[in-house]
Amino acid sequence: MSLNKKSRVLALLALCFLPSIVQTQDGGVGDTAAQLRDAGMKSGLAWEIVEGLTTEVGPRLAGTEADHRAVEWTKRKLESLAFDEVWLERIEFPVWVRYHESAKIVAPFPQKLHISALGYSGSTDGEVTADVAGFTSLEALQEAPLDQVDGKIVFINYFTERTRTGAGYGHSVKVRYDAGQLAKEKGAVAVLIRSIGTDSHRFPHTGVTTLSTDPLPAAALSAPDADQLARIMERGDAVRISLFIRVAYRETGYSWNVIAQVNGRETPEKVVLIGAHLDSWDLGTGALDDGAGVAITAAAAHLIGELPQKPRSSIRLVLFGNEEAGLWGAKQYAAANAGILGDHLYASESDFGARAIWRFDTDNPVLMEAAMPVLEMLGIEKGEAASSGGPDIGPLQDRGVRIFRLQQDGSDYFDYHHTADDTLDKIDPEQLRQNVAAWAAVSYLAAELED
Amino acid sequence: MSLNKKSRVLALLALCFLPSIVQTQDGGVGDTAAQLRDAGMKSGLAWEIVEGLTTEVGPRLAGTEADHRAVEWTKRKLESLAFDEVWLERIEFPVWVRYHESAKIVAPFPQKLHISALGYSGSTDGEVTADVAGFTSLEALQEAPLDQVDGKIVFINYFTERTRTGAGYGHSVKVRYDAGQLAKEKGAVAVLIRSIGTDSHRFPHTGVTTLSTDPLPAAALSAPDADQLARIMERGDAVRISLFIRVAYRETGYSWNVIAQVNGRETPEKVVLIGAHLDSWDLGTGALDDGAGVAITAAAAHLIGELPQKPRSSIRLVLFGNEEAGLWGAKQYAAANAGILGDHLYASESDFGARAIWRFDTDNPVLMEAAMPVLEMLGIEKGEAASSGGPDIGPLQDRGVRIFRLQQDGSDYFDYHHTADDTLDKIDPEQLRQNVAAWAAVSYLAAELED
Repeated sequence: MSLNKKSRVLALLALCFLPSIVQTQDGGVGDTAAQLRDAGMKSGLAWEIVEGLTTEVGPRLAGTEADHRAVEWTKRKLESLAFDEVWLERIEFPVWVRYHESAKIVAPFPQKLHISALGYSGSTDGEVTADVAGFTSLEALQEAPLDQVDGKIVFINYFTERTRTGAGYGHSVKVRYDAGQLAKEKGAVAVLIRSIGTDSHRFPHTGVTTLSTDPLPAAALSAPDADQLARIMERGDAVRISLFIRVAYRETGYSWNVIAQVNGRETPEKVVLIGAHLDSWDLGTGALDDGAGVAITAAAAHLIGELPQKPRSSIRLVLFGNEEAGLWGAKQYAAANAGILGDHLYASESDFGARAIWRFDTDNPVLMEAAMPVLEMLGIEKGEAASSGGPDIGPLQDRGVRIFRLQQDGSDYFDYHHTADDTLDKIDPEQLRQNVAAWAAVSYLAAELED
Repeated sequence: MSLNKKSRVLALLALCFLPSIVQTQDGGVGDTAAQLRDAGMKSGLAWEIVEGLTTEVGPRLAGTEADHRAVEWTKRKLESLAFDEVWLERIEFPVWVRYHESAKIVAPFPQKLHISALGYSGSTDGEVTADVAGFTSLEALQEAPLDQVDGKIVFINYFTERTRTGAGYGHSVKVRYDAGQLAKEKGAVAVLIRSIGTDSHRFPHTGVTTLSTDPLPAAALSAPDADQLARIMERGDAVRISLFIRVAYRETGYSWNVIAQVNGRETPEKVVLIGAHLDSWDLGTGALDDGAGVAITAAAAHLIGELPQKPRSSIRLVLFGNEEAGLWGAKQYAAANAGILGDHLYASESDFGARAIWRFDTDNPVLMEAAMPVLEMLGIEKGEAASSGGPDIGPLQDRGVRIFRLQQDGSDYFDYHHTADDTLDKIDPEQLRQNVAAWAAVSYLAAELED
């Protein structure tokens, strides 16, 4: 899974022979989509973008100086590509920052634990030391009598199932959201959860909890640490943990949604919105989450922008700000553009890593029929109506914007998600290109084929 | 690779049906060896030992309180098994302890780096900030003019090749030993090396450097961090890093070799020494390195101890202290037992993880001929004269003790070696049992078949 040198060389060679797209002026829409697909399979642009963003910026927690550098970097990059317009949309939100986190078992078997504070976690008052109350689910914690939890550090050892679709995460992430609030109601002094992840490496997975005033200190244990703690608790003696979490929280953060558009040739006011999120967690360099999505959708839109004849409607690339701490950019975009959402023909997001796409979902049979002959060569199956267009698309979908989805294989996405290990070496350039090919073809067709 | 629940259940079931070994009094030596093999394949003892040691003690850096707990834990465990004698041999050595290590790129693209100080590294004087001088090998550093290195932080980005035998590590580990001294001679203020490891995860690999007075601060970068630093340097601007390492060093550490013996029935003064090392690095729980070896050789010796008729000579289990920081226990054992090494028939160590054994090496055709019919069923090939019996066996081999080797598949050993990720979930109980089976059979034959 590490970056294969041969692939890199092949990618560079392919770049040298990248033909300009010769659009058949009287050719079919399908021919142009197929040309975009083939250009996508040869394009090194997405790799260049994700390599550049993760190397020259790295981690970019929303509202931090690094995030602002990422906005500047990305705006400059998009301005160098085939967009007609590039603009910023300011967003505001509270900023939560991690300063220190450490944990150790002090009895019966003293040893360190690997933890990461969860987003919006509170700080401990210095070092807090308490006995552990262990549960295997939120429901078990819910049912526990108060005296089993009061004054304790709650540990929830709930497992995340590995699935291609991410359904396992869908089930387990509730633990991350709700454990802190529930444990607090029962008098706990802190909460530790088994990481919401599918790997067995010593990386804790961060991620937000529910935003609240006066939150409980909350952190994730890596899977091996959760296993270790569970084994120690099984031995029956009281287990005592010391925990030290120091975080900062301020109300006055800001960033931007970075937006770029390829204007449509006939109805430019109508847009097909494709996008990703630009911010990342602070631990890794946000290569899979979501540098890859930024790179895929930006490269796809650029290829469409390079066509000699633009599609009927516009392609709007929206790189959302602060997705990670609660879809702040997405909500802002939906609210600020509420008056023109009727002109949003579709919205869709790439925010599930960099593995190959295996299925295309749309409720529009015209789009499906046009797309499938182009996508089949990429190993993409015909799907059904999309249930979601991606997290940042939720607020648009709620307001009635039509969605489509290019589903990636997420089997190993939650091995890296929200960990320090989300780095560039986890991206396979070949699969990244397959994504660009599919996104370019489908986005073009969506903007060309009006109902 | 994580612990499979089904395997655990099967292991437990197998344990319930574990037959006592019915030694055919007039049967062949080969029959007994085959019975030991079969008992090994059914034994849950090695898992019980490595699970217990890594859970109830965890990391056990030589000379620390945790190491002393490990000695106590192991002595107690061995006393409960089928040994005739258990004793401790005190060893003394300096103790190096890690307190703090952090690094960040401050220019041109500010971001944190994941590092681990190397054993015997010096501390920085507060935070040291300097430009980076990058090299791809020790030789390149050696050839560099002084002004290219003086006042800089040296970075050596040398890769470790993945091999079944560990030969790749054999080549690259020189960088870890020598980089600090060489960089110091050329006026560097610190040295960072690419981890001596084969993974692409965000785990730095620690390990000792050469012990010296007034050592340079020296640390390993994880592979993704080394890649990131190399990419940033390739862009051409000066790269500046801040480094903060705080360690402690004291001359007066001590620990013990833990020794247990199954006395031979005819020539108990003659011993077949099998062993492993009990200490571990401080980052992981030392499951692969070398909890597995402790568990495998202890379980194998125990099975021999349970035989109704002991082998002709003794089986001596030696669990060496402080292997990691320079074979201190091994050197002490060889020196203290110099007068009786003529009675050491063989010596061999298990210190290469927990994967299946694939080859048996010995220079003794009698032992090879007796062992191969027993080992073939375990998928073990006939080898040749062993070049090494394991790191702790080196001082014995140097003094003329004959060695044999049961070679494990080390293909992924250096993914975890000396990292925080060396934890119990990396051990496959099934492969662990294969090791016990082979060690029990071969050790028995070595002690039974005198030339």
